[in-house]
Amino acid sequence: MALLVHKYGGTSLETAELVKSVAARIVRARGRGDDVVAVVSAMGDSTDALVDLAHQISPEPDQRELDLLLSTGELVSSALLAMALRDLGQEAVGLSGQQAGIRTERRFGQARITDIDSKRIRREVEAGRVVIVAGFQGATDDLEVTTLGRGGSDTTAVALTAALKAKQCLRYTDVEGVFTADPRIVPDARKLVDISYDEMLELASYGAKVMHPRAVELASVYNVPIAVSSSFSSAPGTMIHSEALMEGPNRIRGVAHDLDVAKVTVHGVPDRPGAAATFFEALSEEHIRVDTIVQNASAEQVTDLTFTVAESALSRAMSVVEPIVQRIGATGLETDAELAKVSVVGTVMRTGRGYAARTFEALHAAGVNIDMITTSEIRITAIIHSDSVVPAAQALHKAFALESMGEDLED
Amino acid sequence: MALLVHKYGGTSLETAELVKSVAARIVRARGRGDDVVAVVSAMGDSTDALVDLAHQISPEPDQRELDLLLSTGELVSSALLAMALRDLGQEAVGLSGQQAGIRTERRFGQARITDIDSKRIRREVEAGRVVIVAGFQGATDDLEVTTLGRGGSDTTAVALTAALKAKQCLRYTDVEGVFTADPRIVPDARKLVDISYDEMLELASYGAKVMHPRAVELASVYNVPIAVSSSFSSAPGTMIHSEALMEGPNRIRGVAHDLDVAKVTVHGVPDRPGAAATFFEALSEEHIRVDTIVQNASAEQVTDLTFTVAESALSRAMSVVEPIVQRIGATGLETDAELAKVSVVGTVMRTGRGYAARTFEALHAAGVNIDMITTSEIRITAIIHSDSVVPAAQALHKAFALESMGEDLED
Repeated sequence: MALLVHKYGGTSLETAELVKSVAARIVRARGRGDDVVAVVSAMGDSTDALVDLAHQISPEPDQRELDLLLSTGELVSSALLAMALRDLGQEAVGLSGQQAGIRTERRFGQARITDIDSKRIRREVEAGRVVIVAGFQGATDDLEVTTLGRGGSDTTAVALTAALKAKQCLRYTDVEGVFTADPRIVPDARKLVDISYDEMLELASYGAKVMHPRAVELASVYNVPIAVSSSFSSAPGTMIHSEALMEGPNRIRGVAHDLDVAKVTVHGVPDRPGAAATFFEALSEEHIRVDTIVQNASAEQVTDLTFTVAESALSRAMSVVEPIVQRIGATGLETDAELAKVSVVGTVMRTGRGYAARTFEALHAAGVNIDMITTSEIRITAIIHSDSVVPAAQALHKAFALESMGEDLED
Repeated sequence: MALLVHKYGGTSLETAELVKSVAARIVRARGRGDDVVAVVSAMGDSTDALVDLAHQISPEPDQRELDLLLSTGELVSSALLAMALRDLGQEAVGLSGQQAGIRTERRFGQARITDIDSKRIRREVEAGRVVIVAGFQGATDDLEVTTLGRGGSDTTAVALTAALKAKQCLRYTDVEGVFTADPRIVPDARKLVDISYDEMLELASYGAKVMHPRAVELASVYNVPIAVSSSFSSAPGTMIHSEALMEGPNRIRGVAHDLDVAKVTVHGVPDRPGAAATFFEALSEEHIRVDTIVQNASAEQVTDLTFTVAESALSRAMSVVEPIVQRIGATGLETDAELAKVSVVGTVMRTGRGYAARTFEALHAAGVNIDMITTSEIRITAIIHSDSVVPAAQALHKAFALESMGEDLED
């Protein structure tokens, strides 16, 4: 008999019928002798509906009030799921983030968990109850309601798994697991049996939508195993843990793609110390994440500076960059929003060789033009035209034989 | 400069536009130099939608979980109204019942306020903020969320007015005030300038929907003046306070009617001590309120027992009454759901005479048959056939000249 943390996403709780079928799944887990603490997201797109309502009231709703507003979505889910369990004869209790002891810093909209006081949850579990915790939210010491920002409910689930020393986090969503690529653009994509934290983190950071990088990072820090599977089927999912033992360590793990990419090029930046840094400091202050940066070799005391940002942040980025271009006397500014990234990821790159060459060859053979390149220890990312995403992802998937769990490729 | 407690009902907050116009009203009050604490209900019929959702999950949803669920409706309103105020440049903060310091006993669905710790509200008001408190809810010492039951938001507003020693409670709703009768059935009905707590309590208890008796009672205990007016107009409303000075003390104040009335008659109840009490104890245990009770003079050691309950509670009442009829050996059971009450109310009855006679005369002249009569010190209620409600209310309204603020009637 183990303690398990379940996590149910919004699509798994979209209707009363779905809430009831989640309750039935939890009852089956209890029937196998396990204790369950379940973390829930808001039903369906109810969070979007609340955000929309807030924007009808104010173009820039106050963040403290927005947190109070948005926290209600997960409260609704937790109360309803607890009711559904009681209706099946299973004692259960729904808890707000505050009631569950989830304490955060006072930073509305993107609070970090500082501490979990798990006394109440433990007491309820010992009394034989299933505990349903509203995800995505916590409270400060002075009772202010905070939300954890993107990936918040996953973060709640992983943090609770660690705090409760639970056996694992079972994350139920509307996809069956982590795939070698997005099956919508690579039909051969295969569901992985398992994947390491580092690999999942790179895939998630570079476009795989399965799980927010923040929750994966937290899981990695506390070594929390996460089983990702679908609440709509009983098919086995993908295990995220410290090493991908079942899939074998010597393989490229997957291909990620991301269409939310734009490029900014500043021409004629004066080649003096700190000139480039001015841009990045100002963008950072506005919380705009800069990804790839390329600075061309300078001639005649000026240089060209190119970097990428999310396409969805481009207009905000330009309102930061334009005044600086004026101020420092750069000669030109150019943007390209029609870009995308494709990435191959695998811890095998730490030890193996030739992965970069094989990546370029595959893209070249598929007629894909590479605009920029960026790499990490376990990832190679090509920035390409957004029209080339499908052939690029398919070519890379094929080049590394990701469709099968076959023998490791030689390098 | 005074501290005022505003209270806005669900119809005043039904849409984003209405929330904004409530914010504008509060800003105008601030402009007159007053501090404002506003208590809000859930938007429109959102509470009904949540109840409906709960019933899709479970035919008898757990009351603790239902309270957690329903509390979100008022949280949404408080966050949105605070956002709307900030959008108008007025500092504001939305608070849950718990954050506002509203402590209750641990009785879900119908908790009573035990204590208000107003430190947080005072601190916010002193900092120049408008405080928006989610009505209808509180929390126990161990952080459980409770709701206050029917009339809950009005109760929150009155309790806060008392706790904060505010000047008065301004209650905004979709009606312009308290009327001498329901204008939908008595076209001559006139808006009262003021009314006493006792009179309002009787009118509310006997069918006037303006305000829940519970909140009126609390206002009476703490001598909290309540100004009832419409959030959709700027017309002056009705003041509820200890004495109706403007309307003059020597008048009948109003006519109330209630269609939610049913009669139960038990024939042949053995005439021994405690036989009748058996019924009323059992009904009370099921929280079914018994109103008028008539026991006919006994002959041959048996008696007929007649009482009224709300028509909406009749089927529950019958499931209590039927087994008792069997057990004590009564000879018959009969119900009539086609009944109504009309009541005339006025503190003048305490000192004046002839009001009962005038009531019967007026009903008789209008051809209304009286089934039963019940009175209090300041009220006369006739139980009549529900088809007679309109002529009965119109006849009584006319008999006591309620359409005008004219001279007191002689008696």
